[in-house]
Amino acid sequence: MVGNTFQVAIVGLGGMGNWHRELIADVENMEICGSFDIKEERQQFAREHGITPYNSFEEVLQDEKVDIVLCATPNDAHKDIVIRALKAGKHAICEKPATMYSKDFEKMMAVAKECGKLLVVHQNRRWDEDFRTAKKIYDENMLGSMFRIESRVHGSRGIPGDWRQEPEHGGGMLLDWGVHILDQALQMIPYKVSKVYSSFTHVTNELVDDGFTCELTFDNGLIYMLEVGTSNFINLPRWYLLGQNGTAVIEDWDLSGKITRITDWSKNDAVPIRTAAGLTKTMAPRTEETIHTDPLPIVRADVHDYYRNVMDAISGKAEIIVKNDEVLRVLRLMEAIKKSAEDHIVVDFEA
Amino acid sequence: MVGNTFQVAIVGLGGMGNWHRELIADVENMEICGSFDIKEERQQFAREHGITPYNSFEEVLQDEKVDIVLCATPNDAHKDIVIRALKAGKHAICEKPATMYSKDFEKMMAVAKECGKLLVVHQNRRWDEDFRTAKKIYDENMLGSMFRIESRVHGSRGIPGDWRQEPEHGGGMLLDWGVHILDQALQMIPYKVSKVYSSFTHVTNELVDDGFTCELTFDNGLIYMLEVGTSNFINLPRWYLLGQNGTAVIEDWDLSGKITRITDWSKNDAVPIRTAAGLTKTMAPRTEETIHTDPLPIVRADVHDYYRNVMDAISGKAEIIVKNDEVLRVLRLMEAIKKSAEDHIVVDFEA
Repeated sequence: MVGNTFQVAIVGLGGMGNWHRELIADVENMEICGSFDIKEERQQFAREHGITPYNSFEEVLQDEKVDIVLCATPNDAHKDIVIRALKAGKHAICEKPATMYSKDFEKMMAVAKECGKLLVVHQNRRWDEDFRTAKKIYDENMLGSMFRIESRVHGSRGIPGDWRQEPEHGGGMLLDWGVHILDQALQMIPYKVSKVYSSFTHVTNELVDDGFTCELTFDNGLIYMLEVGTSNFINLPRWYLLGQNGTAVIEDWDLSGKITRITDWSKNDAVPIRTAAGLTKTMAPRTEETIHTDPLPIVRADVHDYYRNVMDAISGKAEIIVKNDEVLRVLRLMEAIKKSAEDHIVVDFEA
Repeated sequence: MVGNTFQVAIVGLGGMGNWHRELIADVENMEICGSFDIKEERQQFAREHGITPYNSFEEVLQDEKVDIVLCATPNDAHKDIVIRALKAGKHAICEKPATMYSKDFEKMMAVAKECGKLLVVHQNRRWDEDFRTAKKIYDENMLGSMFRIESRVHGSRGIPGDWRQEPEHGGGMLLDWGVHILDQALQMIPYKVSKVYSSFTHVTNELVDDGFTCELTFDNGLIYMLEVGTSNFINLPRWYLLGQNGTAVIEDWDLSGKITRITDWSKNDAVPIRTAAGLTKTMAPRTEETIHTDPLPIVRADVHDYYRNVMDAISGKAEIIVKNDEVLRVLRLMEAIKKSAEDHIVVDFEA
């Protein structure tokens, strides 16, 4: 602490480390007191941005003013760095995925408990507004009883050409993006996941998955489909939400989209559609007099609240929002997904 | 035969029976010589449309001028009607799904062979232009190596309120629409289906499925996702086709859509997108200089060719297009899908 300001040392100053640096600059009572990266170019980057880099990770641990070690290294390094930080008496913020295997995270949790220090994973996408908006639609039952949710993230650039292509460093899209959208799913639906089915893609990369689809069956019957794609040159909507009385679409992170709901079940006369080769009443669109389309009920969020909550949790003023047992549950779910995809089976999860 | 004109008797003059009546009116050398329906209102409908209804099915069978019995009854009645027609020396056109169980169709095939008569199922949606267009994209490798195909049909009217809600008559969306889009899938992809995974929906109906999703894994690794939904108030695209080098979307039966392909792999620099709570390079959209979007390569089709092919096949001038072993394969696939959905397992199919 310096005065009443929490001192954060960033370990690993790549894309995400720098993202934290930028955000924390706007958070009251928290500041970056230094950084460390094994790449000299990033030590230099720190200097250029007014941060004094430490010369080693040991130096970070020995610096008494450091309250929080923020670990933003490749995934396989999280465990050792975080455990050493906790044992040195620091709190730890850890990038996602916390670990590649749930048993490693269990070990980290045990050490945090032993040391009486906070360990919190950076599940930042709980503050994404598309998620908050989808969750509001679910929470407030705006479509009637929901039976299917589809959550997709589509890009067309393959996997980033760094350690994210390497299995030994925890590469692949399940660990990279899957961890976010799975965390969102488990945050949204307050039921157990009974069944898991998944397929991986290997379009641009053989060693790790460059995308996946996954269907979770919750024990209330709801089906939740998740997809990460990195060879999708035209995107499907970010969210597709289906309830008994209506459908909502959130097209993209810009929160474009709409919600269409039934207003009159009684008028069900359909003019069949004629296609080139057939006719169908079942698939005939509804007439406008029976449905109503509204704008999305947009929910705003401030991701800086993540850091504020970390400070409040350390100070005992609030419960931590991103709980370790939630993180552990997602890691275990990812293991079930991997098993399903590799063995081509439906995996029982919390049944 | 009357002169050189094939005489068709329609049995079951509901929606589909009438659709055949309308189409056959435009087919040279084929005419409707009568119809029979157990509902008096449809006998009356026939009279009003210049067709003399038969008084019984027996009368249809006894009428020597009838060449072809066209069976457009509820699904559970197909087998008996078709077998009796074949045994009476008639050729038979049978509505889809041919039968509810593959073993029933095997029996029908055996009788047709015994009697030396043509039995052909009405898989009319092979002539749908959205399908033909998707198939062209696949056949001509327009997206490079394809790894995923999604074929969806969405409506919001639940299931029609007739026998299609009743399991004993072969109701449910798998049998009604599934049979079309599965037949299209097997027509498009010249590989074996190794794995089947499916979930049913029961949003508006407990007794039969009112929709389903299904993932077929072909033995070349391609994943083919199929969906029929009847509680979808906003539709996803009819077709979504993913290849290594591009993506195509066919929005609807009106053939709106586009095909977007990579033109320059070398320019891969991404400006990360900032969402409310994070940033991502992986999901950043491509810059216009690296991709090109074209209109769809639309393929036209004439569904009347179905009837022309039936006549040519009877006359020995052409091979039948809709082959019974193809129909049988789809029926068996539907049984695997049902098993997967009911038992919540991945089913090995042609592995």
